[in-house]
Amino acid sequence: MRHFVEELDYLRSRLLEMSGLVEDSVHRSVLSLAEKDAQQAQRVLHNEAEINRMEIEIDDLATRLLALQQPMATDLRFITAAIKINNDLERMGDLAVNIVERALSLMHEPLMKPLIDIPLMADRVQSMIRKSLDAFVKKDAELARNVLVSDDAVDELCGSVYTELISYMERDPKTVRQGINLMFVARNLERLADHATNIAEDVLFLVQGVDVRHHAETRE
Amino acid sequence: MRHFVEELDYLRSRLLEMSGLVEDSVHRSVLSLAEKDAQQAQRVLHNEAEINRMEIEIDDLATRLLALQQPMATDLRFITAAIKINNDLERMGDLAVNIVERALSLMHEPLMKPLIDIPLMADRVQSMIRKSLDAFVKKDAELARNVLVSDDAVDELCGSVYTELISYMERDPKTVRQGINLMFVARNLERLADHATNIAEDVLFLVQGVDVRHHAETRE
Repeated sequence: MRHFVEELDYLRSRLLEMSGLVEDSVHRSVLSLAEKDAQQAQRVLHNEAEINRMEIEIDDLATRLLALQQPMATDLRFITAAIKINNDLERMGDLAVNIVERALSLMHEPLMKPLIDIPLMADRVQSMIRKSLDAFVKKDAELARNVLVSDDAVDELCGSVYTELISYMERDPKTVRQGINLMFVARNLERLADHATNIAEDVLFLVQGVDVRHHAETRE
Repeated sequence: MRHFVEELDYLRSRLLEMSGLVEDSVHRSVLSLAEKDAQQAQRVLHNEAEINRMEIEIDDLATRLLALQQPMATDLRFITAAIKINNDLERMGDLAVNIVERALSLMHEPLMKPLIDIPLMADRVQSMIRKSLDAFVKKDAELARNVLVSDDAVDELCGSVYTELISYMERDPKTVRQGINLMFVARNLERLADHATNIAEDVLFLVQGVDVRHHAETRE
């Protein structure tokens, strides 16, 4: 087994790689929807298989480090954060697949309107994923707090997507099926943002020892 | 600090308690919807605050056990499983709150139809939660597998709820808003079942050392 410090570095770099795949999946999932591109959808499915493999590997590595190295204080907190972040990233891969499934079911019909807010949500989410992992690697509390703020912006965008789609569906029942598919896309993006927020909260706990979970007032 | 074995027992009993609250929340959330009962909704919000407190406490306890006791093999696996189950239960509390939010927004209008499949989904989900935690406490692989099977049944129910609601919405645009709210209720129940399934998979890994995540074929 490598030296403990090297193992921690490896754990860190694997999580970064995994988050890169998740980011890529988010981007491609919305691209597959907006541009009706089945190849992008395929890549997301391919990414997911890889993300699942990485989750098991990272989980094993983290558990092994806990077992063999009996780490103390900071390292221990780092490893338990890694276990949670790993879990979040894996679920994020699934959410991108959910988006792709909606994209595939809309592949052969024209969209009721050009997509504007949904690609915007996807951009925000990608940036949140990148920042939350950067914050983890650099132990940067400021960056982590930045992610919490972005989450509110994504929630707002999601709300306006819902409102717009519902008004379409109420005016024209033929848009119901597509409208619901698009709402679920927005909902999955919102949940992706929630997972990035979970990661940022884990980073804040890791860096500052402050538990910001369930304390909405600290997120203002 | 109590003896290590006692601490593990305590960890186990706190998780059981927490899952009891989650089960109660699922039950009351759908009751608040079906019977337009705002008091049930309040209880779910109250439960969630308690669940959030328990999550932090259990997380602290588990991390402390990892740090101070340097547990080996089985105990280590038990504690990392506890950390994950804790995380799942907390999110399940949030999902019950999501249902309650939908219930509250439908509180002052008649439902388009009597609810049948949604309460049925809630019953299944409650039973999955109970079984997955029982499986954890008793290290019972058979019971854990039983949860994986129930998940497919819940997915099917969810699919039929969607189909029915979409046909209502297409026939009568005035039902769009309510239909979407009810779809999100079904979706939240489906996600609750997914979390119970995650717990059951963690139990199987704990008991058998077999990683059933991402291996759909083992779930047949």
